[in-house]
Amino acid sequence: MDTAIVREKAEYHRIAAEEMARSLGVPAWSPREKLALACRMLAAEGHGSGLAGQLTTRGDAPGTYYAMRFGLGLDEITADNVVLIDDDLNVLQGTGMVNPSNRFHLWIYRARPSVGCIVHTHPPHASALSMIGVPLKPAHMDTSMFYEDCAWLPEWPGVPIGDEEGELISNALGDNRSILLAHHGLLTACGDIEEAVVLALFLERAARLQLLASAAGTIQDLPPAVAREAHDYRLKKKPIGATFAYFARRALRADPDILAASSSP
Amino acid sequence: MDTAIVREKAEYHRIAAEEMARSLGVPAWSPREKLALACRMLAAEGHGSGLAGQLTTRGDAPGTYYAMRFGLGLDEITADNVVLIDDDLNVLQGTGMVNPSNRFHLWIYRARPSVGCIVHTHPPHASALSMIGVPLKPAHMDTSMFYEDCAWLPEWPGVPIGDEEGELISNALGDNRSILLAHHGLLTACGDIEEAVVLALFLERAARLQLLASAAGTIQDLPPAVAREAHDYRLKKKPIGATFAYFARRALRADPDILAASSSP
Amino acid sequence: MDTAIVREKAEYHRIAAEEMARSLGVPAWSPREKLALACRMLAAEGHGSGLAGQLTTRGDAPGTYYAMRFGLGLDEITADNVVLIDDDLNVLQGTGMVNPSNRFHLWIYRARPSVGCIVHTHPPHASALSMIGVPLKPAHMDTSMFYEDCAWLPEWPGVPIGDEEGELISNALGDNRSILLAHHGLLTACGDIEEAVVLALFLERAARLQLLASAAGTIQDLPPAVAREAHDYRLKKKPIGATFAYFARRALRADPDILAASSSP
Amino acid sequence: MDTAIVREKAEYHRIAAEEMARSLGVPAWSPREKLALACRMLAAEGHGSGLAGQLTTRGDAPGTYYAMRFGLGLDEITADNVVLIDDDLNVLQGTGMVNPSNRFHLWIYRARPSVGCIVHTHPPHASALSMIGVPLKPAHMDTSMFYEDCAWLPEWPGVPIGDEEGELISNALGDNRSILLAHHGLLTACGDIEEAVVLALFLERAARLQLLASAAGTIQDLPPAVAREAHDYRLKKKPIGATFAYFARRALRADPDILAASSSP
Repeated sequence: MDTAIVREKAEYHRIAAEEMARSLGVPAWSPREKLALACRMLAAEGHGSGLAGQLTTRGDAPGTYYAMRFGLGLDEITADNVVLIDDDLNVLQGTGMVNPSNRFHLWIYRARPSVGCIVHTHPPHASALSMIGVPLKPAHMDTSMFYEDCAWLPEWPGVPIGDEEGELISNALGDNRSILLAHHGLLTACGDIEEAVVLALFLERAARLQLLASAAGTIQDLPPAVAREAHDYRLKKKPIGATFAYFARRALRADPDILAASSSP
Repeated sequence: MDTAIVREKAEYHRIAAEEMARSLGVPAWSPREKLALACRMLAAEGHGSGLAGQLTTRGDAPGTYYAMRFGLGLDEITADNVVLIDDDLNVLQGTGMVNPSNRFHLWIYRARPSVGCIVHTHPPHASALSMIGVPLKPAHMDTSMFYEDCAWLPEWPGVPIGDEEGELISNALGDNRSILLAHHGLLTACGDIEEAVVLALFLERAARLQLLASAAGTIQDLPPAVAREAHDYRLKKKPIGATFAYFARRALRADPDILAASSSP
Repeated sequence: MDTAIVREKAEYHRIAAEEMARSLGVPAWSPREKLALACRMLAAEGHGSGLAGQLTTRGDAPGTYYAMRFGLGLDEITADNVVLIDDDLNVLQGTGMVNPSNRFHLWIYRARPSVGCIVHTHPPHASALSMIGVPLKPAHMDTSMFYEDCAWLPEWPGVPIGDEEGELISNALGDNRSILLAHHGLLTACGDIEEAVVLALFLERAARLQLLASAAGTIQDLPPAVAREAHDYRLKKKPIGATFAYFARRALRADPDILAASSSP
Repeated sequence: MDTAIVREKAEYHRIAAEEMARSLGVPAWSPREKLALACRMLAAEGHGSGLAGQLTTRGDAPGTYYAMRFGLGLDEITADNVVLIDDDLNVLQGTGMVNPSNRFHLWIYRARPSVGCIVHTHPPHASALSMIGVPLKPAHMDTSMFYEDCAWLPEWPGVPIGDEEGELISNALGDNRSILLAHHGLLTACGDIEEAVVLALFLERAARLQLLASAAGTIQDLPPAVAREAHDYRLKKKPIGATFAYFARRALRADPDILAASSSP
């Protein structure tokens, strides 16, 4: 048998980062296209709940945002029915209206200039978890990006179409990348679309794992030191981008017309 | 940072209602077509249980109803095999028979002149919940339409093909829009097809969330005031219609022949 | 409002039976075709577990049986790869071998001359339920055909390729139409293919409902009198046949080649 | 009725082995093709978790291995994007990089010369089970291959890209064919691809059964003697190969291009 070359773990982190920088990437999609792809990825992973759920990302001009036209499901969004709105939810480009619940996104964007994209959905497992009064408990390598990075709003302020709800959610989120909203669903607020969407996909997965595990036993804590190391490792920009690109390819295989202008309902 | 325009929530409710009135709508389908689309939506969301489940809606003439031909699954109904029946389940238009269990629908229509459509199915989560002796406990924004609006029949009267069962179910329903029937399934009784179907879809979702949550912890109560506000908000005619139209588009993408006369088995 | 005609329930049972006799039927498929369709229905409802599971039905000559060629999944069976075997599992018509576990079917056929078809599968919910030492507890109208008609073998005799296992299973089954086998799976033994298959489909559904309900609460007993009435109602030959025909149409829509001779792997 | 020929069970084991030797087989696929087929089987059974999971198999030259190109999901692997790597994860044939977590595979290969293939995935049920501090408890005939043959690593050493993690996992595995890794997932290490993949498929199934059963009751122990007999019976080379071939046919029906050189992303 061969004798292994043995190195320090820090060295392996350096090698991995270099290789990822060289090997991984995301195609050059526009914000509208990325938002449409994101909706489809979320739909394919079961995030749809009728017309609930909103994704937004900042537009080029300050105080403008791309958002989904209201009345469509996550599985129907195309680049073509992503609209541009202003800071009061008025549609600047595109037709129709946006979900009035987008209002609480505005409060987060105001409070967190570094946030470029917000994903908010009501998938079944995050929804069920949000009903029992406990925060998310990340306890798996694949959900370690939520370790000390997922807030919890234990009260439900009601349908979030007003300003009070926006302030409450924004304050509860604080500086975290994500939050579980009682009686409501999940939210991620990140620097770019790729991170916000990948985290939303894995936050629902984390909720599913937590429900499955809790029904069968008692969840064991992650060791803090390695959990923090894994948190940072799983949030590296390159693999997050590669994960987004992977889910985007899946979505495009299922419907090649997502990026086409003529396929919107 | 922008400074937000801050308004009272009542003002936001008014704005949302105006925008929805302008932006949302339902295509002009006939009752037969809507009933067929409804069957397919329910099938796609897992409501099928062999040949169990019946949907009915009032016909133009008093004492007449549209119903599904018996012997077909929810995933097979087309506008063409929706039949017209009288107040004793005799087929007036179309071929075949209807499920004898439609009889208890008649008792509800007699007791509630404002009810225009009844959806009754045996989906897995409502069925499982109906076995453990507890009523539905809505605890999520998306299921707030059931807050103080879902009755509970704790006894099972047996196969509901007789008159006694019809009276019992009708009395237990009372003035509620929906009911959970012990050892049996769910039922919604609403003014129109759109509301009855959308509520049936979300009632099964509510049951799923309740089972998932109950297996992992203790469900927390919704705050009554915001629950009532959300109940009314989620039952607004325009978004209910838009939700129906969304699920109808999904059904038509999966099978464009639902509305065609020649596709029935 | 109309005034309802009110009748005794016995009268409704008579009317339903008459209408079903007139309206419901099963196409004229051969035993090989029915067995292939049955495999596909079971596959579509999640009964597959690798190569596990066997379906058999009596052949024309005494001591002969139709069975699945071993090495194929439930989702691959066609009329063409259903083989005819003798009372020692030797293949009389067709190629290949049958699963050695078919041996315990022989013991049931010998003990129960009225049994024409045996379905045995390892679907996930019946399998999980079979691991916790409790019998099936039918508690829903759709599973009332198992009320006092589903036996329970609490020990697992090991891989059932020998004669001892056959005797043990056959004895535990007794005169029941079905049995839950500890650490193993489900079995139905009925007069014809239609009943054996429909019961197998609903037995897995019953196990799923029982698991879902047990994880969330305590299952309430069915009232014995109506449970027995429903047991008989749900086992009526006509609706059982119509249910089989419905699942067969679903299977044929998914793969029109099930009945074709040339599509077997 | 016929009188049965009754034989000793050992005789039935001999007959079954002979018939399987004659009737069952695996097509002549290359290691690259088998690895690609394996990825697709695992994907179809829900093993995907973003880009997590790695499969490797030994190459012809000592210290070489076939592995998946990093950045692709299990559902995207083709024979064409399986790369050849050396004992330090450098790519010898093919483009791109491999997942840095492949490093711990190397430690297992060094410690266990008889291991020809390693499958490591993060499917939901094995993942959830890995969070509650209990080992796998095989309690079903279909999962008896894990009886006294599935190790348990109760600590999580963090992202397994370093040498310490490789040693820890390799030591915990010992001579077992499989291991459940706390807060992480499952791993199988077997003589050939067929066994490693089939065991991975059934290990996730075993975890699912354990979660379902644990949420509803207390899992009963398998009787040791028959569990050991079943362990050996279910690990026979011929039916394992036939099971692999079955899942491969399913994968090829879903995507005939898995083996084609031109279909890789």
